[in-house]
Amino acid sequence: MSAEPPVPETSVLAVASHVVSGNVGNKIAVFVLQSMGCDVSALNTVQFSNHTGYRQWKGTRVSAQEITDLWEGLKQSYLDGYDMMLSGYVPGAPAVEAVGNIAKELRHKAEESQNPGSFFWVLDPVMGDNGRLYVADDVVPAYKSLIHYADLILPNQFEAELLSGVKITDSASLEQAIRVLHQDYGVPHIVITSVSLPLSSSSSAASTPIIPCTSPTQTPRTMSVVGSTMTASDRRPRLFKIRFPVFECYFSGTGDMFAALMVVRMREAVAKYDPKHDATLGERRSWLSSDDVDALDLPLAKAAEKVLASMHEVLARTCEGMTAEMKEVKAKNQDIDEKTLHLIKSRAAELKLARNLGCLRDPAVAYRAEKL
Amino acid sequence: MSAEPPVPETSVLAVASHVVSGNVGNKIAVFVLQSMGCDVSALNTVQFSNHTGYRQWKGTRVSAQEITDLWEGLKQSYLDGYDMMLSGYVPGAPAVEAVGNIAKELRHKAEESQNPGSFFWVLDPVMGDNGRLYVADDVVPAYKSLIHYADLILPNQFEAELLSGVKITDSASLEQAIRVLHQDYGVPHIVITSVSLPLSSSSSAASTPIIPCTSPTQTPRTMSVVGSTMTASDRRPRLFKIRFPVFECYFSGTGDMFAALMVVRMREAVAKYDPKHDATLGERRSWLSSDDVDALDLPLAKAAEKVLASMHEVLARTCEGMTAEMKEVKAKNQDIDEKTLHLIKSRAAELKLARNLGCLRDPAVAYRAEKL
Repeated sequence: MSAEPPVPETSVLAVASHVVSGNVGNKIAVFVLQSMGCDVSALNTVQFSNHTGYRQWKGTRVSAQEITDLWEGLKQSYLDGYDMMLSGYVPGAPAVEAVGNIAKELRHKAEESQNPGSFFWVLDPVMGDNGRLYVADDVVPAYKSLIHYADLILPNQFEAELLSGVKITDSASLEQAIRVLHQDYGVPHIVITSVSLPLSSSSSAASTPIIPCTSPTQTPRTMSVVGSTMTASDRRPRLFKIRFPVFECYFSGTGDMFAALMVVRMREAVAKYDPKHDATLGERRSWLSSDDVDALDLPLAKAAEKVLASMHEVLARTCEGMTAEMKEVKAKNQDIDEKTLHLIKSRAAELKLARNLGCLRDPAVAYRAEKL
Repeated sequence: MSAEPPVPETSVLAVASHVVSGNVGNKIAVFVLQSMGCDVSALNTVQFSNHTGYRQWKGTRVSAQEITDLWEGLKQSYLDGYDMMLSGYVPGAPAVEAVGNIAKELRHKAEESQNPGSFFWVLDPVMGDNGRLYVADDVVPAYKSLIHYADLILPNQFEAELLSGVKITDSASLEQAIRVLHQDYGVPHIVITSVSLPLSSSSSAASTPIIPCTSPTQTPRTMSVVGSTMTASDRRPRLFKIRFPVFECYFSGTGDMFAALMVVRMREAVAKYDPKHDATLGERRSWLSSDDVDALDLPLAKAAEKVLASMHEVLARTCEGMTAEMKEVKAKNQDIDEKTLHLIKSRAAELKLARNLGCLRDPAVAYRAEKL
């Protein structure tokens, strides 16, 4: 494993949930960011015993006022200088607004400075998945009014629909949703993190390496991330997609790991992969590549390729461990009840990160961006 | 940097404070443990904007009831299987008792099992330093009633006095304090983390490498950690000391980093360095080496050597960065007021860990245990 961190010195404010046990929210994001060399401030929006996928948990939420207080605490001691911010799950609309106010202040400070690219906000608008909202209704308009201030948003397909108002059913509506987010909301970079449409493509799905989790004979299934960086002059999409194999297990925290890795790899890509070798890219507001940069050459595309490589390796290791663990459990307990089995399975599916640092730092890139 | 973690799979429950910005308490302990390959559950006892050394902060404490609730939440989902526990700052006597109850339950479960060595509690009894108590008075008896259940305690000199009731003024009283903790309280392993007495020694202090922080011409000053593992048969001390150079800066979080590293290196030492090559050492209650193992061959001594090596390297890097940063600040701001200077200095003195993973994983051991 390389001793050199992939990014230059980078201070990140990470705002998300905290769980005592397991790996979701800030619990995974902070470790990912730190182990990649970032100096991380972690503002925890809840402290729960475990993630809600277990279907039972204990703990408390942090109020909007407490979030604002912590921010005031940072400011009064000159601890509010951040290169980047990552926001994930925030409980309720007032708390979302409180987090948004932090981002707006940091954005404003960067724009007042000589260097509008000195702050970059990665916003994961956690609202729901697969057609189901798991936050209060008023969180949706709260995010809609905030995304204008973000540099990169990471909605899943359902969240992209909620934000854009466009129902995504095919390539055309997907493109339309992204166009709305670029043009109407002015969001510079978008990655939709889980698109399960049949998207037309130049190479066959069978070429994608697959490591199925539970059944090696299963038909391989792929999904895609779809990303775009708008053109600087007229906010047109520059679309790419990256297909990846699906593990047939349910993991929690994958979105949070994806988001934290995107923070690091986006910073790295802007420093290293700028196809124009344009030294000022990192100083431009939102790190917007010149209009003539092709979709597949975008720092965003390069970043997403690396992120998916790490994701795949960590998920493969998690699957391996989980399969072995569940076999053992089932061998020992013939008549385990359904609730207990769900709890044990949830624990076995926790992302295995701490012993797989190499997967984060030096993944073997296996997935390439393609034109949509 | 080696890709292989130094310890076998180890699940640790870490209970300490959380700060949004900076590196103290769980904020540093969790990262240290994770980056060494441990699966960490983090129960945060406070969420403050920054550590209290800044002399101003905002945030909230977690109540004893909330600590107990989180623990209940873990238990109800079978998330309470831990190999080790590390406890640091806990706000107030009721919360100390709540944390103690968690440790007692885990201890009890291990003793009921086939393997009494399957749980090991590292307790840092955070109460004060340099003759000054910085917790409520009733925290002292709360810890006194708990240390009996701990496997390894890590008091500083002042805390060792509070727990043992022995005023430490020379080698004899130091030894007496440790004897009391072994014999009267039954604490198996003790490391006193900062002893500044002139301790007699077989080699000269001048041989210790020094990297002074601010003034390279300053007279080098050394301090010692003093450790002991009691004999299994009659609780006699087996004393060693390790001298290390003092950086002439005030850092926060060094005790927390020391404690987290001790968790990892103790686990590693019991697995790798057992001088009797006794496969059962890790299964014995408190990992107590046989009576005939010499003080300098104790896993505790081997662990402390590695811990101090990592500490020294991280502090050296922090000092370098801090010195450069403060020079820059002073060059830019001629008439900076004292309060602001203190805040900036506090920030510059935050331990620099995320970019120095190699110092944690593969330190060059520079300090050796000596007989007291």
